[in-house]
Amino acid sequence: MTRTKVVAFGGGHGLSASLRALRHCAPELDLDITAVVTVGDDGGSSGRLRAERDALPPGDLRQALVALAGDHPATRLSANLLQHRFSAGRPGGAGADSLAGHAVGNLLLCGLMELLGDPVAALDHAAAMLGAVGRVLPMSCEPVGIEARVRGVLPDRPDEVRVVRGQHQVAVTSGQVESLRLVPVDPSACPEAVTAVGEADWLIFGPGSWYTSVIPHLLVPELAEAIVSSPARRLVTLNLAAEKETLGLSVADHLAALRWYLPELKIDLVLGDGKAVGEPEPVERAAESLGARLVLAPVAVLDGTPRHDPVALGAALVPVLGANR
Amino acid sequence: MTRTKVVAFGGGHGLSASLRALRHCAPELDLDITAVVTVGDDGGSSGRLRAERDALPPGDLRQALVALAGDHPATRLSANLLQHRFSAGRPGGAGADSLAGHAVGNLLLCGLMELLGDPVAALDHAAAMLGAVGRVLPMSCEPVGIEARVRGVLPDRPDEVRVVRGQHQVAVTSGQVESLRLVPVDPSACPEAVTAVGEADWLIFGPGSWYTSVIPHLLVPELAEAIVSSPARRLVTLNLAAEKETLGLSVADHLAALRWYLPELKIDLVLGDGKAVGEPEPVERAAESLGARLVLAPVAVLDGTPRHDPVALGAALVPVLGANR
Repeated sequence: MTRTKVVAFGGGHGLSASLRALRHCAPELDLDITAVVTVGDDGGSSGRLRAERDALPPGDLRQALVALAGDHPATRLSANLLQHRFSAGRPGGAGADSLAGHAVGNLLLCGLMELLGDPVAALDHAAAMLGAVGRVLPMSCEPVGIEARVRGVLPDRPDEVRVVRGQHQVAVTSGQVESLRLVPVDPSACPEAVTAVGEADWLIFGPGSWYTSVIPHLLVPELAEAIVSSPARRLVTLNLAAEKETLGLSVADHLAALRWYLPELKIDLVLGDGKAVGEPEPVERAAESLGARLVLAPVAVLDGTPRHDPVALGAALVPVLGANR
Repeated sequence: MTRTKVVAFGGGHGLSASLRALRHCAPELDLDITAVVTVGDDGGSSGRLRAERDALPPGDLRQALVALAGDHPATRLSANLLQHRFSAGRPGGAGADSLAGHAVGNLLLCGLMELLGDPVAALDHAAAMLGAVGRVLPMSCEPVGIEARVRGVLPDRPDEVRVVRGQHQVAVTSGQVESLRLVPVDPSACPEAVTAVGEADWLIFGPGSWYTSVIPHLLVPELAEAIVSSPARRLVTLNLAAEKETLGLSVADHLAALRWYLPELKIDLVLGDGKAVGEPEPVERAAESLGARLVLAPVAVLDGTPRHDPVALGAALVPVLGANR
């Protein structure tokens, strides 16, 4: 039996949840997992590395690697090391407190990319160091910018549309995103990501920050083309709640946004949590307009926070990904 | 057959040469290698981490780990990553160029020690990440200072004795070191290092910067006591040339210095390079006063620079370490 090739798109926590869920399917389905990760981050530790060193922002790549890290205690410890953030230096210490807040893994990835001059080789080696059960690729080998036209950025001017620049600013805007674009508008796709999409059995979009982690992939021309022309089946995993950047967007609006940014996109299945979806009918209709069927399953953690439970999401994915065409 | 337990003392390049040579003996001798490393560095990347974060200076520890890294291409690449120094950031980049010059491995060790709160556990994990063929331990789990009384620091006052503070300043002084001490004068020894010394078959001192990498071990009271009372045989590997800090010291003076700082120290064998030793008689006498026999072998690289060739040094060590008592 050949392995089922799955490509998961996203960035940050949503992609991590998706990857952790896929790991839980692995024993039953023999999955070959590839994560394709946004490279638009300009906040925090990644933002500093990008501004100071022109580095490919490593934070989301690191998160994906850690989500795929092996189960051996040594590789778990290495994963914890990559996630560890340097504390503040000693009070009154000499020099600037230059490491505080950086994740060790961001520095490691940054050094590895600098050493090898090739982000893909660097990520493959980092994956080997973590005994990762899959591959992590950037959507583009160059950092990209994210810009949005946003209505009502200023609470006292609810109808004014302004351009908000930078992934971090877009993610935290309290206005309503009217349109999104990458800077440059046509970044090159990572060739290995394009190849993985072409060879995939399944493409999985979401969960994640819709405008800053999910949709950016659809705006990279070569990647969009590969997604549209891939023989793979396509699954959207819905979010459990709106985020700041998507406040005011219904679940159906999330699906409509995918179609808006990549009109040729066809989807086979939309996976949602029954409670989060609520009244299913408008979501079913939005799914149908993408060519998809809506599947509902309880995939949230039980503590009431809007987070996917990797075991539950994995259990919901098994019959989906394992079904014959 | 039980493994032959070897503890090698030093720091920096000299210790690396010793460890690389020991690796070349491993196939024939089945060695169990432990490196015990000085923690006095206050220059460069290590010095910055120490000043800013109170970190145990990681540079010499990193060098020892890399010298012991496994031969697999993946662990060799990880070793190269640990040795890689961040380049200068981009011109006009935002913020301070805070990573430039740091070795990736120094940051990784620093993060690992911070995460685990235990330098020995951190070094053991780093060794596992590198597939290391031995263990690396610090001589003390706290950073130490090195201070020397130096005659003729200023060229125009050749007889004036001044206190020079800091390992880096001592290492580069152009005066003559008259006496050396640690700050504090009685740092705790790393308990695992004391245990390793007690269980060793061989203790190996040098090559290396005599005052800043070799002698400091003899000044840690618990370690000195363990060295003196260990049932192990003891070998000194001589340097191939005087360094800045030991300019004016003859080869025999190097041996006398060991005795000066630890009068109870007995040595079994002194290994030197025939060319570097020159007229053997004074060195033989200095060795005898430590209880040792002088063994000469060609152990330098062939390009004329005063560096040990790991293969040649390993070949010279095989009959020495393999001999029955």
